[in-house]
Amino acid sequence: MKKLFNLFFYLTTITLIVTSCSKTDSSSKRSGALNSSAAEKVYVAPGEHDEFYAFISGGFSGQLSVYGLPSGRLFKVIPVFSQDAEKAWGYNEETKPMLNTSYGFIPWDDSHHPDISQTAGEIDGRYVFINANNTPRIAKIDLTTFETTEIIEIPNSAGNHSSSFVTENSEYVVAGTRFSVPVPQKDISIKEYKGNFKGALSFISIAPEDGAMNLEFQILMPGFNYDLSHPGRGKSHGWFFFTTYNTEEANTLLEVNASQNDKDFIAAINWKKAEEYIKAGKFKTMPANYAHNVYDEHTHTATSTMKKEVKILDPAECPGLVYLLPTPKSPHGCDVDPSGEYIVGNGKLSANLTVHSFTKMLSAIENNKIDGEAYGIPILKFEDVLAGVVEQPGLGPLHTEFDGKGNAYTTFFISSEVVKWKLETWEVIDRKPTYYSVGHLMIPGGNSAKPFGKYVLAMNKITKDRYLPTGPEVTQSAQLYDITGEKMELLLDFPTIGEPHYAAGCPADLIKSKSKKIYKLEENKHKYAAKSDEDTKVVREGNEVHIYMTMIRSHFSPDNIEGIKVGDKVYFHVTNLEQDYDVPHGVSMIGANTSELLIMPGQTETFVWHPKQVGVWPFYCTDFCSALHQEMQGYVRVSPKDSDITLSWSLGED
Amino acid sequence: MKKLFNLFFYLTTITLIVTSCSKTDSSSKRSGALNSSAAEKVYVAPGEHDEFYAFISGGFSGQLSVYGLPSGRLFKVIPVFSQDAEKAWGYNEETKPMLNTSYGFIPWDDSHHPDISQTAGEIDGRYVFINANNTPRIAKIDLTTFETTEIIEIPNSAGNHSSSFVTENSEYVVAGTRFSVPVPQKDISIKEYKGNFKGALSFISIAPEDGAMNLEFQILMPGFNYDLSHPGRGKSHGWFFFTTYNTEEANTLLEVNASQNDKDFIAAINWKKAEEYIKAGKFKTMPANYAHNVYDEHTHTATSTMKKEVKILDPAECPGLVYLLPTPKSPHGCDVDPSGEYIVGNGKLSANLTVHSFTKMLSAIENNKIDGEAYGIPILKFEDVLAGVVEQPGLGPLHTEFDGKGNAYTTFFISSEVVKWKLETWEVIDRKPTYYSVGHLMIPGGNSAKPFGKYVLAMNKITKDRYLPTGPEVTQSAQLYDITGEKMELLLDFPTIGEPHYAAGCPADLIKSKSKKIYKLEENKHKYAAKSDEDTKVVREGNEVHIYMTMIRSHFSPDNIEGIKVGDKVYFHVTNLEQDYDVPHGVSMIGANTSELLIMPGQTETFVWHPKQVGVWPFYCTDFCSALHQEMQGYVRVSPKDSDITLSWSLGED
Repeated sequence: MKKLFNLFFYLTTITLIVTSCSKTDSSSKRSGALNSSAAEKVYVAPGEHDEFYAFISGGFSGQLSVYGLPSGRLFKVIPVFSQDAEKAWGYNEETKPMLNTSYGFIPWDDSHHPDISQTAGEIDGRYVFINANNTPRIAKIDLTTFETTEIIEIPNSAGNHSSSFVTENSEYVVAGTRFSVPVPQKDISIKEYKGNFKGALSFISIAPEDGAMNLEFQILMPGFNYDLSHPGRGKSHGWFFFTTYNTEEANTLLEVNASQNDKDFIAAINWKKAEEYIKAGKFKTMPANYAHNVYDEHTHTATSTMKKEVKILDPAECPGLVYLLPTPKSPHGCDVDPSGEYIVGNGKLSANLTVHSFTKMLSAIENNKIDGEAYGIPILKFEDVLAGVVEQPGLGPLHTEFDGKGNAYTTFFISSEVVKWKLETWEVIDRKPTYYSVGHLMIPGGNSAKPFGKYVLAMNKITKDRYLPTGPEVTQSAQLYDITGEKMELLLDFPTIGEPHYAAGCPADLIKSKSKKIYKLEENKHKYAAKSDEDTKVVREGNEVHIYMTMIRSHFSPDNIEGIKVGDKVYFHVTNLEQDYDVPHGVSMIGANTSELLIMPGQTETFVWHPKQVGVWPFYCTDFCSALHQEMQGYVRVSPKDSDITLSWSLGED
Repeated sequence: MKKLFNLFFYLTTITLIVTSCSKTDSSSKRSGALNSSAAEKVYVAPGEHDEFYAFISGGFSGQLSVYGLPSGRLFKVIPVFSQDAEKAWGYNEETKPMLNTSYGFIPWDDSHHPDISQTAGEIDGRYVFINANNTPRIAKIDLTTFETTEIIEIPNSAGNHSSSFVTENSEYVVAGTRFSVPVPQKDISIKEYKGNFKGALSFISIAPEDGAMNLEFQILMPGFNYDLSHPGRGKSHGWFFFTTYNTEEANTLLEVNASQNDKDFIAAINWKKAEEYIKAGKFKTMPANYAHNVYDEHTHTATSTMKKEVKILDPAECPGLVYLLPTPKSPHGCDVDPSGEYIVGNGKLSANLTVHSFTKMLSAIENNKIDGEAYGIPILKFEDVLAGVVEQPGLGPLHTEFDGKGNAYTTFFISSEVVKWKLETWEVIDRKPTYYSVGHLMIPGGNSAKPFGKYVLAMNKITKDRYLPTGPEVTQSAQLYDITGEKMELLLDFPTIGEPHYAAGCPADLIKSKSKKIYKLEENKHKYAAKSDEDTKVVREGNEVHIYMTMIRSHFSPDNIEGIKVGDKVYFHVTNLEQDYDVPHGVSMIGANTSELLIMPGQTETFVWHPKQVGVWPFYCTDFCSALHQEMQGYVRVSPKDSDITLSWSLGED
């Protein structure tokens, strides 16, 4: 264990030193004019709008959060991979199928990297994609409704971390496995990891018209850990780049055993070549079992379909498909500049920051300058692909973004700072401390050919004393810097919900005009919708009872129901008849073993109630909807199992 | 239905007019110097702390949110009544009992009114209490850990809305039923509501030493709807006041049928007299069934106990216990000024705002000036208890708070404004629009003898165009006003999470120094804790397997486990060995049908995994904990059900 403790001691010592230094930095103690200037720059006056949307991943919350910049205000938490009792996500009958997987229903995941769809290399504001890390999946969020409308599971994968990044015309959203596993799974000793465990890189196509996802193929790679990825663009469009660590193929105590090699790799994937191989039939069809879940905006209902096979490409049998670029040392982020020429490998245990050249890589490939192989995959020579090195820029580089003006910004986790440096000269221009250990950073449009280089957002893992304390669990934090000048200026600390990893930002104008205000009642095709008070009814089918209910300010129809019996399974299908913006209603039933429903105008949702005791039980509107909201309630009478009271329902004195 | 439509038309027409007016108010379009002034007033520079904590209810999220004022930044969402997959609340074995009720496990509720504990009439920052509205409960949050540590169910209640408010020495936290029900429950036609349905008002004692809650007694009131309540203080200490509506005892279409009477009541409860009756044995013991759930900070584990009876007081048989004060019209908020003299009945359908005098009430009682009765409860005469009237202050008054300087602030839902008026002269001093329909408002310490009258926070129900749009579902919103001057000044719009109802605020200094930073490992009494790597083990008991696991930067111990079989029930008991502030770890397992665990330093938590397929399955740390976080992972080998592979576990090359 000696090595372990040395490394840990080394890292923590440095952290302590840097943290102490950071604390004395004057930027945390502004006052007077400077303070006023920063205040004005982030203040969005009542009634005015933020300039940018920021979609910040929830990390271990499993969700995606929508913020405004520069104010740092949280507008919505979009439920994606985790149940949300507030919005009934994963609780109501309509959305439960969205959380189905090959392992059954899963109420949680760990969402990491949002990425906005692109057209011609620029973000187009149609969709955001985000990955589930724990039980591998990719979700699509529709940016007209800000709702999750599709989730696809990724088979043969484990720890879906190098995901979900989009190519420049949204041809694919790509996912790579962080933990290699036996493919297909089998009962094998963990000690036999080396050579037997594999890492799948998955290419999921996105249909141009409606964004429908389909797993087109997987490339079965050696048993490394595939950490992050980004697409080529411009000149490198058609390629995809993945960082790797644990090229040692260790299976235990990775903090030591996966930190041995001086260089790991960036894997460069020629996905246009992959398409050719697929077209030529050079794939193996492998049995698989993975869920594809789709939410239909008109039925307001999701379906889950199990898919049964996947096309596999073996890189050893597909020349020209994959090349390995040696990259120091356990590289984490894999970032491509707006031109597509430079690929940054953020070697988290490396003293320097390594930048590869796409042009030099192509040239090395053309000239067949191969320097060995790994499991049949050619390795290029470090010097042949190297564009340049940023010398000793900081400690623990993780991620790099670009401002579109020739500058790059890299986060350093251990030395807690953002460092600005220049592409092509590789010189450091500025550095600013972060409070504290920073992970990802985001410039709106930063993962595209056209960044909007006004702000950079640092997402920090540790806050300690930055905010009022909240017991042992404290918030994670973002910091906003103005990057319009030569030097960065820290403007704002704001807390973040969940554990923010990556974020994707874009100018507000790209999205706001397309934002849907209501669901049209006439387009509601829900099987149990009641589109007017006249359509309401209560129907018994054996011990199942279906209530077709409506809500409008400020009553339910029906609001008195009798004839329900102990042991019944009662479905409340509730339609919100409102057709005005921002008039949701909610509904819940005392003692129901589920969540409320929060129903938008024009929408129908369903909850199930199992009445267990005779009596008269109230339900009510859970969203303060009008001056007479408190009066929006009703009662259900529950009679004994053997009662002969027949179903009846009413509103008012009818 | 004619009345219904008239009323609705009346209300919406007014809303439209007022909303239009609001939009032209210049305060929403500040610029220049004014803008800068507001910006500086709410800006909390990086590294500096907010002046106040604000505990804002989550409403239909079921949780309690912690904000800082004046910045409006969200520091933590404390899980209370709803499952939270991020923090494993209601998913891990330790906290599932917290959501147990007499109806079984319930994953959601509607949390409305937080109130901070008090000593000698001033808030003391020990606990926050909050009510569950749908399945009646009260929760206690410990303000050293910011965690929910106790939940008690309220029997005989339905729609626990007039809750949870605390008396001036935290003798009681009080709850009143919004929906009356048969007590005890029985199979009875809803049409027989009048006279047969009852409303229970519950008094839950709070133990001075540890805050333990106990349901001491209930007062069984007529079948009205008990909407809100507040304690007497100072001269009125020993009394509690509840607003009522639906004194018509309607059971259907309440928006019409419960809006008929010109006056409803404020029920004044003499709880010191109640204590005397209890002591004298003048109660009936009634069978009941309600859950009492307690989380132990040292075992890190909750238990749920079912309680089986409750003491009932019948006001008709207890002279002097309850008086009814006529109050126009469907009063919503019931607010008591810092001196305890004035009780404000916010009659939401009344043109005027009614204020009662405690002194006059006592005098009327002493002089036996009774003006009828309701179900044996004496009604006092309106004129005999009236302190004064604020004439036509706005439309749809809901709630009032106080600044401690003789001023009151009332929200008006329909006319969307906060109105400042003077106690004793009853004159309107100022009015400011809110954007838009405002419900509650909060002045830190406002529900005590000592408010901190620097800010008022308005909690608004509708936002429409105030923020960047997020599809049909848009955020609710708070607005912060400076109230140090004669006129209120709007400073900030900030979005709120969930559906904020009431809030409780207090100066940061009252809480921050007592905030716990870690759980001490040596005090960990969890049954399955492993307090060092040496304590780790894997134990099989039939088909149950218990893994005693530890985590510390940056490895799990053990990290390779073999000998698990398909069909096993595998308990991961995971202890975070860290003893530094702000170093949580998380853990999750691919395909587990539960949430992650998010474990604070010194804490142990447990999740259950049902392996369904043979193979080798990874788990990992879900909270980015160090530069080698990505390396913090492990594998579990799952063999067939009939395999004879024995249990083994390891870390590194041991």
